Amino acid sequence: MFSVTCIAPVNIAIVKYWGKRHEELILPINDSISMTLGTNELCAKTTIAASEGFQHNRMWLNDDELPVEEDSRLMRCLKGVQRLALANVSQKVSLSWKVHIASRNNFPTAAGLASSAAGYACLVYSLARLYGVPINEELTTIARQGSGSACRSLYGGFVQWHRGALEDGSDSVAKPVVSAQHWPNMHVLILVVNDERKKTSSTKGMQRSVTTSQLIQHRVDKIVPERTANLRKAIEARDFPSFAEITMKDSNQFHAIALDTYPPCVYMNDVSHAIVDFVHSYNETIGEVQAAYTFDAGPNACIYVLKENVAKLLAAVQKVFPNDATESVEYLRGITVSDTVEKHPAFNGTLNVQPKNLLKYIIHTKVGDGPCQLSDDDSLLTNGLPLSH
Amino acid sequence: MFSVTCIAPVNIAIVKYWGKRHEELILPINDSISMTLGTNELCAKTTIAASEGFQHNRMWLNDDELPVEEDSRLMRCLKGVQRLALANVSQKVSLSWKVHIASRNNFPTAAGLASSAAGYACLVYSLARLYGVPINEELTTIARQGSGSACRSLYGGFVQWHRGALEDGSDSVAKPVVSAQHWPNMHVLILVVNDERKKTSSTKGMQRSVTTSQLIQHRVDKIVPERTANLRKAIEARDFPSFAEITMKDSNQFHAIALDTYPPCVYMNDVSHAIVDFVHSYNETIGEVQAAYTFDAGPNACIYVLKENVAKLLAAVQKVFPNDATESVEYLRGITVSDTVEKHPAFNGTLNVQPKNLLKYIIHTKVGDGPCQLSDDDSLLTNGLPLSH
Repeated sequence: MFSVTCIAPVNIAIVKYWGKRHEELILPINDSISMTLGTNELCAKTTIAASEGFQHNRMWLNDDELPVEEDSRLMRCLKGVQRLALANVSQKVSLSWKVHIASRNNFPTAAGLASSAAGYACLVYSLARLYGVPINEELTTIARQGSGSACRSLYGGFVQWHRGALEDGSDSVAKPVVSAQHWPNMHVLILVVNDERKKTSSTKGMQRSVTTSQLIQHRVDKIVPERTANLRKAIEARDFPSFAEITMKDSNQFHAIALDTYPPCVYMNDVSHAIVDFVHSYNETIGEVQAAYTFDAGPNACIYVLKENVAKLLAAVQKVFPNDATESVEYLRGITVSDTVEKHPAFNGTLNVQPKNLLKYIIHTKVGDGPCQLSDDDSLLTNGLPLSH
Repeated sequence: MFSVTCIAPVNIAIVKYWGKRHEELILPINDSISMTLGTNELCAKTTIAASEGFQHNRMWLNDDELPVEEDSRLMRCLKGVQRLALANVSQKVSLSWKVHIASRNNFPTAAGLASSAAGYACLVYSLARLYGVPINEELTTIARQGSGSACRSLYGGFVQWHRGALEDGSDSVAKPVVSAQHWPNMHVLILVVNDERKKTSSTKGMQRSVTTSQLIQHRVDKIVPERTANLRKAIEARDFPSFAEITMKDSNQFHAIALDTYPPCVYMNDVSHAIVDFVHSYNETIGEVQAAYTFDAGPNACIYVLKENVAKLLAAVQKVFPNDATESVEYLRGITVSDTVEKHPAFNGTLNVQPKNLLKYIIHTKVGDGPCQLSDDDSLLTNGLPLSH
């Protein structure tokens, strides 16, 4: 029996992916750019074992077994990496052997953070390690077919997913823009919002947008190309204000397109919009753009902020969004902020204090590296079965 | 002393006006189409008296005196109608006489319903009556300079405000599409939503959209022309499903443009979006499009519904948006619904019941006629002063 254990990061889109031109191959209608987050705070972890003795392909996600053979996206990733492995003469693991896969996230699913990107990236990366397949752009086309944005989680730092033009999707690949080391002080506060509503899934939402929004094609043709070019420049120059403006504008435009969909898709709620107002007021109060929000297909905010400004921003967040649990370790997660709230008493009169407990908790993280392989000590499988079994 | 008293209706845009190409002349960047509401439920009422004995132009709005001469929009309307009156040889009222104006709405300002359209339409109509100026398209260009959408309140039924092309705005006029009698069973439920937020004014919001939205020009160039043409056809054919789809899509797109603005303008709240969801679920449950929402620059919903379907819709609204005050006359205002809620028990399982008291109250009204002059018995002025003075 051979086994590998790997972790892969979550990524947060800055220029948003919204809309497919091919459903099954998961080919997007526009380029997107994301930042990869640190795996310490948020990651998927996957162990894959292969053995001549396994009867069936099996998979456990967070302890629940899934019907592998019925999951077309999963099978597509498995077959995809196995196809690449055919070219690999030094391969120790036979492609005819069945695999057992166990996967977990180190963050609660309830957080409403997109876990599928990290999950599929980790699956494809682990399969590549298992079969000795090189980690390259071609591998991103496999991850893409699990979950579109998964292709961006195969690299650290800032990553661009190029829509590509070919019908078979072979040029729809993710490529690094810069590594995490290029802009290491780029931090993120994730504000996890309390929300009870049932929302349209991303897959259905983007299908509906492509079919019904009368604005989406204009975004794709006229706005995204310029925006990705400008964002790359801002990232390369470490120009935070430009980066921030593009980030906020593209988040707003993505939600505008969702709203122009028929029936409309609404992912942000009143608390999300209160966070938007807060960030604009905060920047205005400071007289400088030091914080930038972005929202995916859900109500939670990711706020980009440079390391040196985290404590000040966090002090303002705590003031504007008071919470009974502020003092608990469960409320403020991730990278420790050494500066305390007390050191930044500046935000009194100008920012509107919101009702209590609008936020569930806050995660403090930063730009991070791509997937990596762990040692066998970290395996999620014992004798080919999950630890809990 | 000569005096006239008139009322003018509120109108609700179906294809929305959003964005000016000239701030002072209030020239819009696109055509808009609205429906005029019945004055029994919602109207502005204005009395204007002119006398050789008056020392100054004075105005009282809902009992509060305004500084007339400092109000450029008001003065523009006054001067505008007086200029038209110069052509009127039979004029009994001298243009040199000062005027006293009293105006009131028959609905609470707190309702968040745009009162300025009815108010300026009533002002301009009353001035026209006072000076014997004919009620025609030219008069709509004067009302437009008080508040853009006021030009549409000078006619009943369905009204189109043509953006025009001339720099002086003389061809930016409102014209009737069809009278109220063309589609007399077109009713409206206005759901007034509890809301505490401070919002961006329409004037500032549309300025910001024109400057910053990268989608608005596409809407203006490519979408509105086709949409207005299709809406006119739907109205002429009394085709409710087509009318409804255009109405809902244009409401959504207007709010999408507001969201694409930087910083974004957000007028709908969670309750508004719950109403949107409700309307789509309701139509789906029935298997026919019988209700259509539209939202202006605020959280309140206007739901278009044919007279024969009002009771059924209202029953569903009462079920989905339960309210402690349901039984009170203050909660359900306007046209009496003879059918009771009990007659429509159909909406049980399929529609999601919301928390209590999300709505402040409901106004039931319908398509109505344009402004009209009342008798002196209805005057808001006694000896040139408000009744309450």
